[in-house]
Amino acid sequence: MGYAAFLERMGQVNDLLNAKSILSWDANTMMPPGGAVTRAKQMATLMGLARDVLVSDETRSLLDKAEGEVSSTPDGSVERTICAQTRDAIDYHLRIPSDLIRKRTELGGLGHDIWAEARKNDDFAAFTPLLEETVALNREMAEHIGYDAHPYDALMYRFEPGETMATLKTLFATLREGLLPLLRKVQGADTPRIDFLQRNYPAQQQLAFGISMARKLGYDLHRGRLDLTVHPFEVSFTRNDVRITTRIVEDWMPGSLFGTLHEAGHGLYEQFADPAFVRTPLATDLIGFYAVSGVSFGAHESQSRLFENQVGRSREFWELNFAEAKAAFPEQLADVDATAFWRGVNRVKPGFIRVEADELTYDFHIMLRVDIEAALVDGSLSVKDLPEAWNAKIKEYLDLDVPNNRLGVLQDVHWSSGQIGTFCNYTIGNVMAGQLFAKAREDAAVADGLARADYTPVREWMTEHVHRHGRRYTRDELLVRATGRTLDPAPYVAHLTQKYSEVYGV
Amino acid sequence: MGYAAFLERMGQVNDLLNAKSILSWDANTMMPPGGAVTRAKQMATLMGLARDVLVSDETRSLLDKAEGEVSSTPDGSVERTICAQTRDAIDYHLRIPSDLIRKRTELGGLGHDIWAEARKNDDFAAFTPLLEETVALNREMAEHIGYDAHPYDALMYRFEPGETMATLKTLFATLREGLLPLLRKVQGADTPRIDFLQRNYPAQQQLAFGISMARKLGYDLHRGRLDLTVHPFEVSFTRNDVRITTRIVEDWMPGSLFGTLHEAGHGLYEQFADPAFVRTPLATDLIGFYAVSGVSFGAHESQSRLFENQVGRSREFWELNFAEAKAAFPEQLADVDATAFWRGVNRVKPGFIRVEADELTYDFHIMLRVDIEAALVDGSLSVKDLPEAWNAKIKEYLDLDVPNNRLGVLQDVHWSSGQIGTFCNYTIGNVMAGQLFAKAREDAAVADGLARADYTPVREWMTEHVHRHGRRYTRDELLVRATGRTLDPAPYVAHLTQKYSEVYGV
Repeated sequence: MGYAAFLERMGQVNDLLNAKSILSWDANTMMPPGGAVTRAKQMATLMGLARDVLVSDETRSLLDKAEGEVSSTPDGSVERTICAQTRDAIDYHLRIPSDLIRKRTELGGLGHDIWAEARKNDDFAAFTPLLEETVALNREMAEHIGYDAHPYDALMYRFEPGETMATLKTLFATLREGLLPLLRKVQGADTPRIDFLQRNYPAQQQLAFGISMARKLGYDLHRGRLDLTVHPFEVSFTRNDVRITTRIVEDWMPGSLFGTLHEAGHGLYEQFADPAFVRTPLATDLIGFYAVSGVSFGAHESQSRLFENQVGRSREFWELNFAEAKAAFPEQLADVDATAFWRGVNRVKPGFIRVEADELTYDFHIMLRVDIEAALVDGSLSVKDLPEAWNAKIKEYLDLDVPNNRLGVLQDVHWSSGQIGTFCNYTIGNVMAGQLFAKAREDAAVADGLARADYTPVREWMTEHVHRHGRRYTRDELLVRATGRTLDPAPYVAHLTQKYSEVYGV
Repeated sequence: MGYAAFLERMGQVNDLLNAKSILSWDANTMMPPGGAVTRAKQMATLMGLARDVLVSDETRSLLDKAEGEVSSTPDGSVERTICAQTRDAIDYHLRIPSDLIRKRTELGGLGHDIWAEARKNDDFAAFTPLLEETVALNREMAEHIGYDAHPYDALMYRFEPGETMATLKTLFATLREGLLPLLRKVQGADTPRIDFLQRNYPAQQQLAFGISMARKLGYDLHRGRLDLTVHPFEVSFTRNDVRITTRIVEDWMPGSLFGTLHEAGHGLYEQFADPAFVRTPLATDLIGFYAVSGVSFGAHESQSRLFENQVGRSREFWELNFAEAKAAFPEQLADVDATAFWRGVNRVKPGFIRVEADELTYDFHIMLRVDIEAALVDGSLSVKDLPEAWNAKIKEYLDLDVPNNRLGVLQDVHWSSGQIGTFCNYTIGNVMAGQLFAKAREDAAVADGLARADYTPVREWMTEHVHRHGRRYTRDELLVRATGRTLDPAPYVAHLTQKYSEVYGV
C-alpha cells in the first residue's frame, strides 16, 4: 500500500506537469492574443504546485514508507529506481534556495523583451547587464547544486545528467578532428543544385506530404496531431497524446518536411514509452520539471536526429520514396531525379545562424556555445568580451566573418530565459543518433526494412532499446545496453564522412 | 499583507480551475482520441488539488488574517465579500464527506456508458439501478449540505444559490398560467414557412456569418475564438480568453446561427467582467469548482438567452440585419424577405426533445424535469414510476404521446453524471433575460442602438448592470440593483405573448 500511495502522489505531480504542457501547447497554437498575461500566471502556478507537492512533507513521508516496502525488490528494480530518482530530485530541489529560483524566474520574465529589442537594434551593450546577471545567478546556482570539477557540470545536470566538461572536451576534440577536414573539402567542392527546392510548394500540400512521411516512420495520429507554429516543437501529455508542430515556408520545401520528421522522431520516443510507466516518475523529469519520458535532452534529440537525418536524409530513403514526393509535387520536381533530390537536401552551406545550419556544420555552432558558456560560468571569459570570442570561433570553424551581433552572439533566445547549460544536448543527440543507427543496421530485420521502405523494424528497434525504457536507465546505461559502449562519436563521424563524400564526390 | 497573501492563494485556486477548463476545452476540440483516459486523470487531479488548496490549513489561516485586516472596510466591500464567500465555500466543502464525493465521482464515471447503452436500446430498466443510486446519493448529499424546507433546495445551491422549491413553485405556476393558453392558440394557428431554412447552407459560410453576427453583439475575438464541437458550449480561462463552439447542420441554418449568438451571450458575461476581479474569488465559483465570473447558472443563461432570443430573434433585429444574411446566402434566401425570415426562425413546434425545443415550449421541458427531480429527492416519486410521470407531463404540457423512453426519460445526459439539481437555471435564465431586456430598453441609448443595429449600448448596459460585477452580488441582489425587483416573470411572459401574437397572428 505504501508504494501504491506514493506512486499515486507522484501521478499527481505528473498530471500537473502535463497540464502545464497542455497550457503551453495551447498558448503556442490556439490561444487568442489577449490570453497571454493570465496564461503565464496559470502555468507558473502549475509549476509551483508541482514543486510544492514533490518536496512536501507528505510526499517525503510517503517516499519513506515506499522505500521500506520496496527494499526487498532487486537492485535496479523499477520500484527502487523510481524511489531513488524521486529522492534525488527532492534533494536537488531542496538544495536550490527558492529565493534564487524566484530571481531567475523574474530575470527570465524580463529577459525576452530586452533580448528581442537588443537583437533588433544590433545593440549588444543593451543585453549586457541582463546577461551578466544571468551568468552570476547561474554560477550561484551551480554552487548550490554542487559539482566535482567544473561549475558548468552542475548546470548541465538539469538537461544532460552525468555530462561534464571533461567528457565534452574529449568529445568535441574528436568531432573537430573528424569533421573540420571534411568540411574544408566540401567547401572546396561544387555545390549541388537546390533551385528546385526553392520553387513554390503550397502549404496544404507540404503539410500533407510531411505528415504522410511522418506516419511512414511510425508517428501515430490516433495519439498525436500536427499544427502550425512559428517555432516548431514536440510536446507530450503522456504517451497517449503526443503533438508536433511545423512551420511552412512556401519557397523552401525541406524546412517543413525535415522539421516534421525531426519532431516526429521526438514524438516516437514518447509514443512508444512503456505504457506501465504512464504517470510515474519514469515518465516525469523531476529535475527539470517537465512531463517527459526521454531520459535526457540529448537522448531525446538522438531520436529526432535519427529519424530526420540518419533515416530521412539518406540516399536509400529517397531512392525508395522519391516517387511519392514527385506524386505530391509533380510540377515542382518535374526535372529532378531521386539522386539530385537527395543531394539537394544534403547541401552544405556554412552560415551564421545555428537553427538554419546543415548536418555538417551544426555541431560547430554547438561547440562554440558550450565552450563560451562554460568560460562565462568559470569566469575565464567576461560578458563584454563575448562578441569577440564568438566571432573568432565562427572564423576558425566556418571561415566566416560575422558582420554584426544579430547574426552572431545575439541570435539565440536561450540566454534571455535565464538558462545556461542547454546547448550540448544537440551535439550529444547527433552523436547518439549515429551510434544507435549504426548498431540498429546490424540487425537484419532493420536493414531489410530500410531497403524496402518499411520503417517499422527500425522504429521497433528503437522502441526496444530506447523508447520503452523511459527514464529508467541513465543515458549512458541506455547506450551500453543498446550498443555495448558509452557515448562514442566514431559511427557519427563515419556517417557524415561517407554521406558527404558521396554527395560532394570528395 | 495578510489580505494580499490570501488573495494570491485564491489566485492559485483560480489558476487550477482555469487550467482544468483549458484541458476540458482541448479534450472537446483538439485532443486526439487516444488521449481520453489520461486526460480524465489530469482533470481530476486539478480539481482535487483545487479543493485541497481551498480547504487547507494554510488557506484557512490566511483567511483568518485577511478577515482581521479587512474588517474595517465597509459592509459589502469587495474585500469583505471575497472573505465571506471563501469562508462559506470552505464550510460548504467541509460539510460534504470526501467519501461521498468519491462515490459520486465513481458513479459519474460509470454513468455515461450505462446511460448511453440504455438509451440506445430504449431500455429504462438498465438505467434504473444507477439512477436509484444517484438519487440516494444526492439525498444524502442534501442532508450534509443542509436546507430549511426541501432537500432539493440543498442540491440547487451549487448551481443556483438561494433558489428554493417554494419560489420555483410560484414561478412555474405563473409561467404555466401565462404560457399554456398562448401555446394552445399557437398550436391552433397556421405555421410559418421554414422550407428556406432547410436548404443547403455550406459550413464555412455558416461559420463566417455566425461569427460576424456574434462580433456585432460585442463578442471580442482578440480574447476569444470559435471552434466546432458535437455539443456547443462556452468556456473561459479568465476574461482574457473566452471561447465558444458551435455545431453546423448544413440543412438547418438556424441551429448554428442562434447557437453561436447563444454562446456569444455567455461569452460577453465573462469577457466584460471587471478586470480587477481576475484570479479572485469574484471570478471563481468556489462551490461548484469552476472558474467563472457569472454569479449563477441562471444568471449566466440570462445573457445567452438575452442575446440569442430577446435581441437575435426579434423582428427589429432581422429588419436591420436581413440584408447581411441575404448577402451571405443569396441563393438560399432569394425568395424570402425579412419578415418571413423572422417568422421562420420563431416557428413553434412542440417536440419530445428539450435541446431542440423552441422559445415557447422550452420552459415546459424544464418545469417537468425540476418537478420530477424534486419528487425523486423527497421520495414522493420512485425511479420505477419515472417514465409514467414523465410521459403524463409531456401530454399535459405539449399534448404529445411519448412513443419510447429514448424520446422521453432517457434523453438527457445530466443524470448519468451523478448530478441532480441542474435544470432550473434554464428557465431562470429565460425569465431574467426578459426582465433585464425590458429594463434595458427603457434606456434611450439602448433603444436607440437597437433601432439602428448598434448593439454596443445594450451590451454596455448589461456590462454596467450584470457582467462587470462578476460574483460580487447574489443573483437577486443583481436583479434588484438592475431592475428594482427580484426575479419577476411578467416581462418574459409579456415578451413571448407579444412575439407569438405577431408571428402567428393570434
